[in-house]
Amino acid sequence: MATEKTIAFVLYPGCTILDVAGPLQVLSALSALRPDYRTVVVAERLEVLDTDTPLQVRASHTFADVPAPDVVVVPGGGGPTLRALTDETLLSYLRGAAPEARPAASVCTGALILGAAGLLAGRRATTHWAMLDALPEFGATPVRERWVADGPVLTAAGVAAGIDMALHLTQELAGEEVARSVQFFIEYDPAPPLGGLDWDRAPKALAATAGEMWVRDGLGDHPLADRLAARLKSGG
Amino acid sequence: MATEKTIAFVLYPGCTILDVAGPLQVLSALSALRPDYRTVVVAERLEVLDTDTPLQVRASHTFADVPAPDVVVVPGGGGPTLRALTDETLLSYLRGAAPEARPAASVCTGALILGAAGLLAGRRATTHWAMLDALPEFGATPVRERWVADGPVLTAAGVAAGIDMALHLTQELAGEEVARSVQFFIEYDPAPPLGGLDWDRAPKALAATAGEMWVRDGLGDHPLADRLAARLKSGG
Repeated sequence: MATEKTIAFVLYPGCTILDVAGPLQVLSALSALRPDYRTVVVAERLEVLDTDTPLQVRASHTFADVPAPDVVVVPGGGGPTLRALTDETLLSYLRGAAPEARPAASVCTGALILGAAGLLAGRRATTHWAMLDALPEFGATPVRERWVADGPVLTAAGVAAGIDMALHLTQELAGEEVARSVQFFIEYDPAPPLGGLDWDRAPKALAATAGEMWVRDGLGDHPLADRLAARLKSGG
Repeated sequence: MATEKTIAFVLYPGCTILDVAGPLQVLSALSALRPDYRTVVVAERLEVLDTDTPLQVRASHTFADVPAPDVVVVPGGGGPTLRALTDETLLSYLRGAAPEARPAASVCTGALILGAAGLLAGRRATTHWAMLDALPEFGATPVRERWVADGPVLTAAGVAAGIDMALHLTQELAGEEVARSVQFFIEYDPAPPLGGLDWDRAPKALAATAGEMWVRDGLGDHPLADRLAARLKSGG
């Protein structure tokens, strides 16, 4: 058997639960089929954390336990994710983990955290559609795709896009047959009752209000708040 | 404002995290847009529970706190879900909650738990494709659809189908405009890298082995184990 590889999902207070659970379900299924991949969930401490829903969560390992994962995945969220942009413990963990990680990945606004850790400079990247205009603040070129691979960095669009990205990653790591088995296991045969998203009907005003609120809730009067708010307002 | 309605997600040890997190994300977003809906996560006790991944979870309320939710959602899983079929505390909670719940809903093999609580007798229902043949044990008629509504019971197919079901439920509860906003918020515009499931390529042998293992792991020498194993083997 090949040397064991470790896939680490990063938790922080208040993150969006589906950003974690979607790709975690996919990559845990990869681990079940290919035991040379180990999946863990890491956080600063092994304490119970809030999410953006009434479900609370706890990691399996601390940052110190898994300093150099082979894959790292950072979830996003609203205000708490913006707050995490100034969490030096989290950013320092990512800066330490990223050089070895193939890929350093994000879901949704988790991309902004990769950005704050300095990992998006000069790279193409994506994030939740309502926050795309914030990416240039971190030197990234925003791209509106379901997921974007640029060198060792893999970013997904909002929330549910993490499932698609994780299946892509599974295929990269273990091939098409394993990826297909995982997709069958999680019965991912999407049938949204209203169909796919019709972007002409996107609730842009609601999203702009939400984006501004996330920035203010998360960053308060930190200088980054003004810079991000200005970018969101001006469209980049 | 209308009277507050409560949507309760049920946790038990070892359940599949995406079965919970997919619909929970959707219905929490409904709650954010329509504060007359309150979303909670219930369990027997407020203790940290394992899932089928390295992520651990904790409920926000006990069964006793929320005896009569307006909507109840039961997730599925592998062996631990089969074990839950004999968890009298859980079944008794569901039997008490179901008469008021519109709907009593399940994701994946959570349907078997509804069945064990006596809630599927005479009803059309669905579950994870690998366990469909187990449904007649509980008096249900298996239906291969993404989700199935029959009276006050709403069942979804495997794992990821919970997201589709929850968007359908959101539309039922709050209308198309709210459902569309929720879908945009979670950016659910699926793009599976290998496309939708091609059922001619389903890993049936792997599923049969997994199904048998879940039954034995979860139920051991309980009489229900033999009956379910026989149904899975004979195709109903």
